[in-house]
Amino acid sequence: MTAPETEEFLRSKIPLAHAMGVRVERCGADEMVLTAPLEPNHNHLGTAFGGSLSALATLTGYAFLWRELGEPDAHIVIRRSELDYRHPVSGLLRAVCRPPEESALGAFRNAFHRAGKGRVRLRVDIEEDGRVCVMFSGDFVALR
Amino acid sequence: MTAPETEEFLRSKIPLAHAMGVRVERCGADEMVLTAPLEPNHNHLGTAFGGSLSALATLTGYAFLWRELGEPDAHIVIRRSELDYRHPVSGLLRAVCRPPEESALGAFRNAFHRAGKGRVRLRVDIEEDGRVCVMFSGDFVALR
Repeated sequence: MTAPETEEFLRSKIPLAHAMGVRVERCGADEMVLTAPLEPNHNHLGTAFGGSLSALATLTGYAFLWRELGEPDAHIVIRRSELDYRHPVSGLLRAVCRPPEESALGAFRNAFHRAGKGRVRLRVDIEEDGRVCVMFSGDFVALR
Repeated sequence: MTAPETEEFLRSKIPLAHAMGVRVERCGADEMVLTAPLEPNHNHLGTAFGGSLSALATLTGYAFLWRELGEPDAHIVIRRSELDYRHPVSGLLRAVCRPPEESALGAFRNAFHRAGKGRVRLRVDIEEDGRVCVMFSGDFVALR
């Protein structure tokens, strides 16, 4: 899937992605980058709302795995997540998912293709001005 | 703050709460209950999107603390959260925050009123048909 296809997929399947104004900036094997403007995603302090940051990180994990499996019909669900909010985000929300170690990704792919069920932990960083503002770690499961 | 006041406060300050259709079902000292309809919050599988569940739980924690402090101008931020997605939610999203131990809440209140900064861990459950579908635990900080 290309970046526009991934964007259309997310926005059509998950209404909140549309409400948040989510865009796919980059859809590569080396990184998946999703963004959302501050305006529909601010909180009572004028910075990014924690719930929007969490939702964007979760979407970025989904998008990374959909691309990785190459099967939009794979049922990907999240089982667990941890978020560490280090610094407020005061402009564009920008989430970056880079691949985990190849051994972990290979085991996930093999389990999915052989047994129809794979599990993997992904890290997603919300970055602004070259620093990590939010660290997300999520356990995702893909089912055929 | 009453339930309608809390709802108006959340929706006016945090646009995502409005987009999600968040309602305040109960706004008491014994529990804070927020809900959101499935329709704007579903995922690609037709069940509740993890990002919506996370955002709703975060809002419920905020609302609990705003009510607790009785100061809508208190700056409440989230520092850390963990989510355990146990079962899919297939209807109304309903998040319940019950008070932590009185010792923890008292320490939070005292620190906020004396030093202008308090920190507390809250648990929020997303419940459906009498069972906990998502367990959220979040560390919140209130600043004057």
